[in-house]
Amino acid sequence: MSVEDIKKARTAVEFNRENLESVLRGRFFYAPAFDLYGGVSGLYDYGPPGCAFQANVVDQWRKHFILEEDMLEVDCTMLTPYEVLKTSGHVDKFSDWMCRDLKTGEIFRADHLVEEVLEARLKGDKAARGISEADVEEDADKKKRKKKVKQIKAVKLSDHVVKEYNEVLAKIDGYSGPELGELMVKYNIGNPVTGEALEAPKAFNLMFETAIGPSGQLKGYLRPETAQGQFLNFNKLLEFNNSKTPFASASIGKSFRNEISPRAGLLRVREFLMAEIEHFLDPEDKSHPRFHEVKDVKLSFLPREVQEAGSTEPIVKTIGEAVESKMVDNETLGYFIARISQFLLSIGVDETKMRFRQHMANEMAHYAADCWDGELLTSYGWIECVGCADRSAYDLTVHSKKTKQKLVVRQKLDEPVEVTKWEIDLTKKLFGPKFRKDAPKVEAHLLNLSQEELASKGEELKNNGKIVFKVDGVEGDVEMDDKFVTIEQRTKTEHVREFTPNVIEPSFGIGRIIYSVFEHCFWSRPEDTARAVLSFPPLVAPSKVLLVPLSNHKDLAPVTAEISKLLRREKIPFKVDDSGVSIGKRYARNDELGTPFGVTIDFESIKDGSVTLRERDSTKQVRGSAADIIKAIREITYNGASWEEGTKGLAPFVSQSETETETE
Amino acid sequence: MSVEDIKKARTAVEFNRENLESVLRGRFFYAPAFDLYGGVSGLYDYGPPGCAFQANVVDQWRKHFILEEDMLEVDCTMLTPYEVLKTSGHVDKFSDWMCRDLKTGEIFRADHLVEEVLEARLKGDKAARGISEADVEEDADKKKRKKKVKQIKAVKLSDHVVKEYNEVLAKIDGYSGPELGELMVKYNIGNPVTGEALEAPKAFNLMFETAIGPSGQLKGYLRPETAQGQFLNFNKLLEFNNSKTPFASASIGKSFRNEISPRAGLLRVREFLMAEIEHFLDPEDKSHPRFHEVKDVKLSFLPREVQEAGSTEPIVKTIGEAVESKMVDNETLGYFIARISQFLLSIGVDETKMRFRQHMANEMAHYAADCWDGELLTSYGWIECVGCADRSAYDLTVHSKKTKQKLVVRQKLDEPVEVTKWEIDLTKKLFGPKFRKDAPKVEAHLLNLSQEELASKGEELKNNGKIVFKVDGVEGDVEMDDKFVTIEQRTKTEHVREFTPNVIEPSFGIGRIIYSVFEHCFWSRPEDTARAVLSFPPLVAPSKVLLVPLSNHKDLAPVTAEISKLLRREKIPFKVDDSGVSIGKRYARNDELGTPFGVTIDFESIKDGSVTLRERDSTKQVRGSAADIIKAIREITYNGASWEEGTKGLAPFVSQSETETETE
Repeated sequence: MSVEDIKKARTAVEFNRENLESVLRGRFFYAPAFDLYGGVSGLYDYGPPGCAFQANVVDQWRKHFILEEDMLEVDCTMLTPYEVLKTSGHVDKFSDWMCRDLKTGEIFRADHLVEEVLEARLKGDKAARGISEADVEEDADKKKRKKKVKQIKAVKLSDHVVKEYNEVLAKIDGYSGPELGELMVKYNIGNPVTGEALEAPKAFNLMFETAIGPSGQLKGYLRPETAQGQFLNFNKLLEFNNSKTPFASASIGKSFRNEISPRAGLLRVREFLMAEIEHFLDPEDKSHPRFHEVKDVKLSFLPREVQEAGSTEPIVKTIGEAVESKMVDNETLGYFIARISQFLLSIGVDETKMRFRQHMANEMAHYAADCWDGELLTSYGWIECVGCADRSAYDLTVHSKKTKQKLVVRQKLDEPVEVTKWEIDLTKKLFGPKFRKDAPKVEAHLLNLSQEELASKGEELKNNGKIVFKVDGVEGDVEMDDKFVTIEQRTKTEHVREFTPNVIEPSFGIGRIIYSVFEHCFWSRPEDTARAVLSFPPLVAPSKVLLVPLSNHKDLAPVTAEISKLLRREKIPFKVDDSGVSIGKRYARNDELGTPFGVTIDFESIKDGSVTLRERDSTKQVRGSAADIIKAIREITYNGASWEEGTKGLAPFVSQSETETETE
Repeated sequence: MSVEDIKKARTAVEFNRENLESVLRGRFFYAPAFDLYGGVSGLYDYGPPGCAFQANVVDQWRKHFILEEDMLEVDCTMLTPYEVLKTSGHVDKFSDWMCRDLKTGEIFRADHLVEEVLEARLKGDKAARGISEADVEEDADKKKRKKKVKQIKAVKLSDHVVKEYNEVLAKIDGYSGPELGELMVKYNIGNPVTGEALEAPKAFNLMFETAIGPSGQLKGYLRPETAQGQFLNFNKLLEFNNSKTPFASASIGKSFRNEISPRAGLLRVREFLMAEIEHFLDPEDKSHPRFHEVKDVKLSFLPREVQEAGSTEPIVKTIGEAVESKMVDNETLGYFIARISQFLLSIGVDETKMRFRQHMANEMAHYAADCWDGELLTSYGWIECVGCADRSAYDLTVHSKKTKQKLVVRQKLDEPVEVTKWEIDLTKKLFGPKFRKDAPKVEAHLLNLSQEELASKGEELKNNGKIVFKVDGVEGDVEMDDKFVTIEQRTKTEHVREFTPNVIEPSFGIGRIIYSVFEHCFWSRPEDTARAVLSFPPLVAPSKVLLVPLSNHKDLAPVTAEISKLLRREKIPFKVDDSGVSIGKRYARNDELGTPFGVTIDFESIKDGSVTLRERDSTKQVRGSAADIIKAIREITYNGASWEEGTKGLAPFVSQSETETETE
């Protein structure tokens, strides 16, 4: 089979999610966690092939980003004290809206509920109007959500209601809790089974809470992202980098999200592996020195304007053009978008099922200034798998303000500059007698005023001869006249520029990416649809080689041992299958495991040391010495050679019993 | 310097923990987590070199155990529901004893408190008797604990009290909470600062608790070990392994322990990386097919008898002798002990600071049948870094019993055997009419009776003509006569043997191992004690090569770029340091980072392409072509060659300014 033939074969049989899941569970890629105990929704374990696949994806991520760009990897704790996440905004804003059915105790996620009920009604309307399902091309986005509403009733709606419902659905990700509550009242949305009314939506914080230490006093959470640990270590990282910017830190680890009602298998889980980069850069210079290397990468974009116009038709252009036209804000953001796409393709993502969608203003995380999602198309619709956000100076600023520690870059200026600034001087010896034990608090308050606050207080002092203000932890108003304090604008020559860096954050949900790759790589052989294949790129395949002695005749064992030794020396992961079953069955099993190469040892091998190499997708075979075959495997797996390049010089091989063997 | 000279140099300057910590924090190997917010005790972050070192240790672990022995790696969730840990025994038994000072609110760990107070009194006694500190060789074990007791008072104790205190201290790890309470009363042990009495010891469960899902009803914990996830997946793993035993699963991931009062830096933390193996085997055959490969490995053992005799003098013998003499129970346990030692040595553990200590009967975990700890000697004393426990069939049995799911191996017998067993038959059609909705529960109860229970019920039925019993979830007694049920012994021919496998569990605390390696690899150059070195084995060193252009002259840049390219192609992690500071300073910085090799590019390099290779410990230098130098680096780093083997064929090189350069 040629490359074109394989492409054709891979799409000949329609994708069927149940078949995929049956292979993934049957081969223990993953399984529901604790299913011996009935399972816990949203928690999954990876079995041996899933775990190896995940390790290879992480390894490739580390090479592609951390090593290639010399990023500073850190490993921070998951347990995080309350104060940190209060400051970052997660305690107040990291939540979904839930409504409870007070009679049954059921809990619904409000936005999903409204969406599902309105969609079901629109479907019922179509049925009533006699529009058959087949005529209606359903948006792939909507396929993922179908659970709460069990029955579609054929009820015709008036035209303006249909229009309203469609408008609501288009904006569903942007409603606040109270707005969702109003929609539920207006459209009479209750428990979809009983029809009973529900409680109004309440915010439910999605962080898992716990107590640190024996006193139970120190409240903590499991981190919702790895980012905060990186921000908190900013000063140490900057120092480690010899105080130079831009630089990036990176972190790979588990994060947690207490989903209201997890579903969609591996796509929406409560504990998941993330890989995050925080690229710290000068807010006044977001260029990237290596942008030219990626500028011709062509991608599908779904910018804000296109979505606002109600379209899902992507714009295809190069990242160079996208940055040039300001559709993507700056070079560094663009550089990472391109590098993300390269990474995804290297691990098996289907290029035609990848797009970059800009966040709508109302759906962005509380910290983001701009955000593009790398989305992958699956049978659940387009899934957000990578976020690429510009978090501006948000995090460093809030942590610095809260802890009163500077989190800034100091840059020596080539030429000194004149700077006019508000400054404050305190006559400290007067503070003790007047404010007693509160004196340090009052001083700290004044020394931490921002430029804007100083300007305002400076005016007040000039106009009134005194200032009045409140201080955290000090009762009542604090009042002082100009004997205590001087506030004025001064012009100075500065040799150093101090700034809070901005942050560009590419953030990867490894589990979602892995599941999407499973879907993109899965197909069934057209000649026998029961034979499934997972066409992982060799680089990330769980195991690279299946070593199969033709039979379990004892004369073959020494050759098997010899080749095992060679593979181990070359550090190529492999498995031996010397079970009694037919070669065809053994290969079929490994096609399901995504093993890209088979090496067959037969009686010829004993005589001349030659073995057969089989390629998983095409089932093509070549023959050569063990050393040459292993060299080919290494070239294709680790050095990016194609099958043709890797095996040139090896003789094509046609087994006499090829057909029988493969379909046995 | 020869290998002998390096050995001498490495021990010339006495180890000083503060110097080590200053290097580790200064170079950001690790830092207290959240220290911007004042820190949380027991939580640490790894910075770039610590993170890279950890990744390399984990990588070596994976190769040494998982790949070498074809183990089945799984990745299970940390969130674990209550039921699972209730069954495993952790809810009831995974706790320490704490006492609270009701006045100050302070909380003490009871065993540590008793130990510290008695030790302080013994010290005071020695002072009173005029025995100076220098005369008293303090047991290294005790050095780690010194915190609560601030002042040593010179008070003489009577001889029998000294004897009693010493006896208590020898058994300190074995006391129950009530016993500790009695000791506190008997010896008048209270708050060591105020002297006030404390509350009696209470059990404090060390698991972090949380609630899963929005209802708050599903109680869960963060796992205290990775083992449970492996046990719960036993059936799937067995199937994946084609139903063959023995086999091993393995898991690498974070676990959690809510320590009462964490201390000793990285050694006692609340969140830590573990690597655990569960080797499932036939309880009647604990031999190991590869035992002969390790039988001559010589180790230091501290068996139970030696400890009971009050000695800490290890017995040195081969693992073969240890198993032969039954000191170590069986081949598989012995095989893993030897493999553990090989792993530890490969990552930089000092052989003279490693021993294997058998657990005393009263200190074993609740599930263990036998346990040997791999202990490493540090400035905190001997530290348990690896546990190697025989968990018998404990876990599989309790989970099977609780969930009523079989967790067994079925083995085809070569020859069928006659087996006599109690069997039960139900006349099911009578159950419905009599027990109505309870019928299924009653049936399930009867069908799940053990052999012992059946024997007893069989006797009851025979003697009384009826049986009476209780059923979970059914009110009152259940009674039935022999029309409903037959219970009798029958002899049958069986072709399959069914057994619950035993489990040998090597369990690694990666953080503790890493800290111990830091200590074992740390030394100061005798000629300049301010110059510290971390002599990591190249295999696990965070970065392998420092690439240093002699100056930042622009002509050197192309050679630097060229060699960078070669190193990247060979996948050898390296750093370029083209900062302006002297070569000596640049090397000194990297000695602290443990970088084993330096490659210097000078003006000669531009002419003939030759570069200099420097070895960290000896500061020896050789010169050759870039290709030859990189080959030497690869051989030494990844293929286990010594410096002499790796660099033979390269010319020795003596820089004219060697002395100045290195000490500049």
